[in-house]
Amino acid sequence: MQYHVNGEMVPAEAATVSVEDRGFLYGDAGFETCRAYGGDVFEWDAHRRRLETTCETLGMPDAVPADLHDRIEATLSANALTDAYVRASVTRGVQSGKLTPAEDVTPSVVVIVKPLPRGGVGGEDVWDDPAEVRTVETRRSPRAAMPADAKTHNYLDGILARLELRGTDADECLVRDTEGAVAEGATSNVFFVDDGTIKTPTLAGPILPGVTRAVVLELATECGIPVETGTYDVDAVRAADEAFLTNTTWEVRPIETVDGVAVGGGPVTDDLVAAFDRRVEACYGDADRE
Amino acid sequence: MQYHVNGEMVPAEAATVSVEDRGFLYGDAGFETCRAYGGDVFEWDAHRRRLETTCETLGMPDAVPADLHDRIEATLSANALTDAYVRASVTRGVQSGKLTPAEDVTPSVVVIVKPLPRGGVGGEDVWDDPAEVRTVETRRSPRAAMPADAKTHNYLDGILARLELRGTDADECLVRDTEGAVAEGATSNVFFVDDGTIKTPTLAGPILPGVTRAVVLELATECGIPVETGTYDVDAVRAADEAFLTNTTWEVRPIETVDGVAVGGGPVTDDLVAAFDRRVEACYGDADRE
Repeated sequence: MQYHVNGEMVPAEAATVSVEDRGFLYGDAGFETCRAYGGDVFEWDAHRRRLETTCETLGMPDAVPADLHDRIEATLSANALTDAYVRASVTRGVQSGKLTPAEDVTPSVVVIVKPLPRGGVGGEDVWDDPAEVRTVETRRSPRAAMPADAKTHNYLDGILARLELRGTDADECLVRDTEGAVAEGATSNVFFVDDGTIKTPTLAGPILPGVTRAVVLELATECGIPVETGTYDVDAVRAADEAFLTNTTWEVRPIETVDGVAVGGGPVTDDLVAAFDRRVEACYGDADRE
Repeated sequence: MQYHVNGEMVPAEAATVSVEDRGFLYGDAGFETCRAYGGDVFEWDAHRRRLETTCETLGMPDAVPADLHDRIEATLSANALTDAYVRASVTRGVQSGKLTPAEDVTPSVVVIVKPLPRGGVGGEDVWDDPAEVRTVETRRSPRAAMPADAKTHNYLDGILARLELRGTDADECLVRDTEGAVAEGATSNVFFVDDGTIKTPTLAGPILPGVTRAVVLELATECGIPVETGTYDVDAVRAADEAFLTNTTWEVRPIETVDGVAVGGGPVTDDLVAAFDRRVEACYGDADRE
């Protein structure tokens, strides 16, 4: 594999950053996980906007390079990949030894890609089975401590939550906020279906505004499925008719169980999966026309 | 400069980690900042213990290498340094693409050093002036979201707090917990003196158990100064007779102002500074006897 590091394509095994890069020292960096379908970076504008928001929050508003999309395309091309996982990181780079960031930033920019199967209609899911979800004790940090809409290299909250799953069959967590309301998974947004209505925690809580979350809400409206965002407890998810998770790599993934209680997908989840696949399929159509 | 990376001494400009190292991707790493005085790593046992606690919290209890102290000494020696800043990091290394950590860990271990002036009696302070402190809006994450006694590469809370100081004269923050109580600085513990008693926030709050904090509490007891740990609001610090900050590099640093209100050091702070200098001076005595 070839990765893109600070403007150069380098073999994966030689792709490194300085041990004094603030992305390494402090997790002082923003990132996005994207998927390429048929050579197109799906929802690129939304990913780029969120990365810019993250970098603004981190006090480095101009850090995202103008040609980041070109760098991603070049990396896909160098690896002869059209269907791929893409991770793009922008760090504050190397500065003086102080924790206080200097205003003058020379960001480090890293693009990593991995092959994924084809998506879209008739595509292959990247997950083997529907999710087994468990409620964990680790809480999402309140917005007063950590801005929820910044996607950064400070990802230990999700890692500590996932560590709680050791020794269980679960592969995703249900993380609550400090008030006890359902927030999200470690790497996913949570949805459930109640009497035909799709429900998901409001972004007023400490929740990452997932790009796939937004697409699914849009598709639900297009499909004429009622949508509600609000504040819910774990019991509401356990008692739901259907439940599913969303993220960029999983797309729409049904939840088989919550804390061992069977929930599962169903007709509404199926409709959304089909609508999502059709949306993705357009990427392949575009590629054919080129 | 020469740094120590994964068992090898390398020139600083060639000291790197993989872009797939979890220390870089997620800040999935513990670290310690130490000071060497006269070639001795001050309070090494306490730093090693805290690093082990951090790695246990991160679910990698055996990650700290047995010879970490040797690696630090070798790095000091390679740079002909006896008085130095030392940063030792232990990351979860490179694993599969999943967020969930694998149990089998090959940690990345990095030691960085920088020259510092001599400490101890008659030594030189690393800070130019007493601290100007400002209360910031960014709150310390509650313990339910982030264990307070883990010192990790997830350091954005401190960075976001320091960013709030842009455009002010302040160089350290007063960070509160989500209940409004004083927690700590971005990189320091906070103390104040009230009617001859030294007061500092209790470790029951979301506060890093600073190594220098512990030494200062011990020295206060040795000096016969009454000590109280508790829960305090910002007004208590502003109204104090004296106030100071502690961390490994600053040692004991008086607070000149809090939110523009003059506080300053004083006789109790002076006594602790002198006691701290004497404690450090013992490192040089030991070196002479070798």
